[in-house]
Amino acid sequence: MRVGCCGQGTRRVHWGSGWDVGSWPKEVKPPAPYADPSPAAPLGVPPLPGRGELRQAGAAARLSMRRESLPPRQYSLCLALPPFSSLWPGSQVAVTFLSLASRPERVCVSKVVVILGPGLVSNLMWSLWPGRVINAGKSRHNEDQACCEVVYVEGRRSVSGAPREPSRGQGLCFYYWGLFDGHAGGGAAEMASRLLHRHIREQLKDLSCWSSQKEVTHESLVIGAIENAFQLMDEQMARERRGHQVEGGCCALVVIYLLGKVYVANAGDSRAIIVRNGEIIPMSREFTPETERQRLQLLGFLKPELLGGEFTHLEFPRRVQPKELGQKMLYRDQNMTGWAYKKIELEDLRFPLVCGEGKKARVMATIGVTRGLGDHNLKVCSSTLPIKPFLSCFPEVQVYDLTQYEHCPDDVLVLGTDGLWDVTSDCEVAATVDRVLSAYEPNDPSRYTALAQALVLGARGTPRDRGWRLPNNKLGSGDDISVFIIPLGGPGSYS
Amino acid sequence: MRVGCCGQGTRRVHWGSGWDVGSWPKEVKPPAPYADPSPAAPLGVPPLPGRGELRQAGAAARLSMRRESLPPRQYSLCLALPPFSSLWPGSQVAVTFLSLASRPERVCVSKVVVILGPGLVSNLMWSLWPGRVINAGKSRHNEDQACCEVVYVEGRRSVSGAPREPSRGQGLCFYYWGLFDGHAGGGAAEMASRLLHRHIREQLKDLSCWSSQKEVTHESLVIGAIENAFQLMDEQMARERRGHQVEGGCCALVVIYLLGKVYVANAGDSRAIIVRNGEIIPMSREFTPETERQRLQLLGFLKPELLGGEFTHLEFPRRVQPKELGQKMLYRDQNMTGWAYKKIELEDLRFPLVCGEGKKARVMATIGVTRGLGDHNLKVCSSTLPIKPFLSCFPEVQVYDLTQYEHCPDDVLVLGTDGLWDVTSDCEVAATVDRVLSAYEPNDPSRYTALAQALVLGARGTPRDRGWRLPNNKLGSGDDISVFIIPLGGPGSYS
Repeated sequence: MRVGCCGQGTRRVHWGSGWDVGSWPKEVKPPAPYADPSPAAPLGVPPLPGRGELRQAGAAARLSMRRESLPPRQYSLCLALPPFSSLWPGSQVAVTFLSLASRPERVCVSKVVVILGPGLVSNLMWSLWPGRVINAGKSRHNEDQACCEVVYVEGRRSVSGAPREPSRGQGLCFYYWGLFDGHAGGGAAEMASRLLHRHIREQLKDLSCWSSQKEVTHESLVIGAIENAFQLMDEQMARERRGHQVEGGCCALVVIYLLGKVYVANAGDSRAIIVRNGEIIPMSREFTPETERQRLQLLGFLKPELLGGEFTHLEFPRRVQPKELGQKMLYRDQNMTGWAYKKIELEDLRFPLVCGEGKKARVMATIGVTRGLGDHNLKVCSSTLPIKPFLSCFPEVQVYDLTQYEHCPDDVLVLGTDGLWDVTSDCEVAATVDRVLSAYEPNDPSRYTALAQALVLGARGTPRDRGWRLPNNKLGSGDDISVFIIPLGGPGSYS
Repeated sequence: MRVGCCGQGTRRVHWGSGWDVGSWPKEVKPPAPYADPSPAAPLGVPPLPGRGELRQAGAAARLSMRRESLPPRQYSLCLALPPFSSLWPGSQVAVTFLSLASRPERVCVSKVVVILGPGLVSNLMWSLWPGRVINAGKSRHNEDQACCEVVYVEGRRSVSGAPREPSRGQGLCFYYWGLFDGHAGGGAAEMASRLLHRHIREQLKDLSCWSSQKEVTHESLVIGAIENAFQLMDEQMARERRGHQVEGGCCALVVIYLLGKVYVANAGDSRAIIVRNGEIIPMSREFTPETERQRLQLLGFLKPELLGGEFTHLEFPRRVQPKELGQKMLYRDQNMTGWAYKKIELEDLRFPLVCGEGKKARVMATIGVTRGLGDHNLKVCSSTLPIKPFLSCFPEVQVYDLTQYEHCPDDVLVLGTDGLWDVTSDCEVAATVDRVLSAYEPNDPSRYTALAQALVLGARGTPRDRGWRLPNNKLGSGDDISVFIIPLGGPGSYS
């Protein structure tokens, strides 16, 4: 069922004034397969929703890919059938993904633009195939991964209280985008980019059997399915981490479009915003030692054995010195948002479970993000104390009802890893959306590509005397930068 | 230091078309004193901030009360020196508190209007004293309590890193309102109404010694002081509950005005909103089994011994039946906001830790509010299992910077117990604010009293064929109803 993937190329090409296109390296071998949580549907075209042209396009895309027998994950490619285009007949919508390391000497850019429309279906795959994939430098170091999919969900047959024999027509189709920001190795991000949507599909199988129950909405079932899928993905990583070298962990930011609603699920410090008519609508929250301080402290308080006698669950504004024993010092515990004074005791001399500020904040002096997948082997530096119990694999899911608003071609959902958001504010992103999109015709599909490029390059900065600088002379992002631009409206709605 | 209190009268008087004034019953004896967490300042007038008239008024109020040697807590009286009046010279501001049970046959109304202004200072206490205290019926059953205070905080001398010898002039003054909605007895609410502000004073003593430290703001110290004060109040209730018959528990909604900022601290299901120029600004969140489900479930998951083998931390849409063992059923755990399916096991047949919806939601099938003070003796019905470990005494504190906005006389902070909010939406409160206040001149102090009356009586409803009904024919509130109206602006700002 895998239609396209956005992976790490291995070919270095020149980074210059334009976008250099890297060809496919033939020497790379396909990796060993993971256990498939959700086997693909039988051969044949599953019933996609929407107009006939779109169904054909989806099928053509998937079948073309299969015919080519491409080795998976060996090129930088991101393919999507934009779901929102189905809302407006005749629309042409682009979905753009850009991934970029911050330094030109080791840069990785993945970009594919897919254009759907009645006149473009026939040569869709061929116009897509040879070019428009840019991959330059730093391929082995860029730990961001991405994925977009059209996923068909066949109904399950044996859920209590649901019809026993659902027909095949009860299946669902959802559209899926995932952005995975790896750390301490790229294995977790790669595994998640390949399998998370399959776990979601598996969980959503019960959805087609759903009949209205007290206080349980359809929406809350989709949210529950996504939440459980994240947990099952994490458990699979734990099981298979030795066999498949699933090193490190990753933040996961996932978008699902299903039955008129957009579900944005976030576990980590990537972020999503909608820019609608210039207005900014946050669609996710970041999960860091600072934003999750109280959850971490509560766990340390209730399960002190997890602190191994090395850490204290209390927070202090600075490291407490032995000579301060018995003196009063400001502190915060798991219940407090403010600071108060306490008398320093021996236990307070331990290292704080949560310390540091902003991007330097760390759990157990080690990791700066508190939700995500993987990290099952992560230990405190120079210790055997595991950090995973303090990390949560559960996403927070926000829902946006696409049918509640009129959208124009300039309304977009922007997903980005922290490489973007560390140096770019929401307002700056909205300003870039306005500036770039207004320079193109509404039906010019390259406008979204240009927007993604502008955001990524804007976050990277330009070389000056002392490093790569932003226009305000601050340092550009030193992290990998990946951006998805998902248009919410199409020109069809204005014709 | 106690200036006024809003207690339970004991005299039944007629409830008719007007407000009947109850006289003071002489036979009531003062209760035994609690341990004072924060002894009053030495005799003499502490330096109140603001204009001379207000300082005199504050001093006059406290001294007059002391001279009268009134037995505490034996009349319905609520006195406040409105802090916000000090922002506008010559202002006249009313602070109104109304408490009312929902049924006329057992009604308790406490109302005092205090008017402050240059021309009114001399006869302030005397115009206040004999009348304007209304107390009718249901006194022994109304479990709401209230308090407002002007509290002087003298600086402490021995905080590490702070000046060793602060002068007396480093003291602070804060203004205080507290609303306490008791349950399972009135003891906790009464104790909190008498002592919580003293705990806050004690905690704020360190504040006057504060010097700027990394990442610790003045505001976060005030919040920390309030949080710690709630905890200490709760611990004192636990210590003294036998000696003083501190039965039951209470929700606590507290407002503090200090150095230009309004701090709203809430532990329970009372609520506060600001109505500013018609706009509604929520200043608190409710803490109920529904809003705190995940916190409760997490505790049950991490400390299963607290469930005593009687409860499961999982939630199901309905009670699971033994015959459903092995079947699939929807559930939610501590990490989930959505619902997913699981196979029913033996442990799932236990009663859910959190069950029910809306006002019927309960923790351990017993209590419908999850934060507050007291409840140290609360047990699961027909069991020795304590519920207190699942209840939090910590408030959530929200801050409103009064200096950031221009306020007009129609801008008010509305505090109410759930008796008000169960049947009145924020929009209805805002509409009542507009309707009532616009019927009065901006400088007419009775406008706020009328507003409080309108809100309380509106929530109670009027008698019809089948019970007390609201205008929309729904049932009026069956709970005690207490409301504070605190004006944020005064006419002085428009002269």
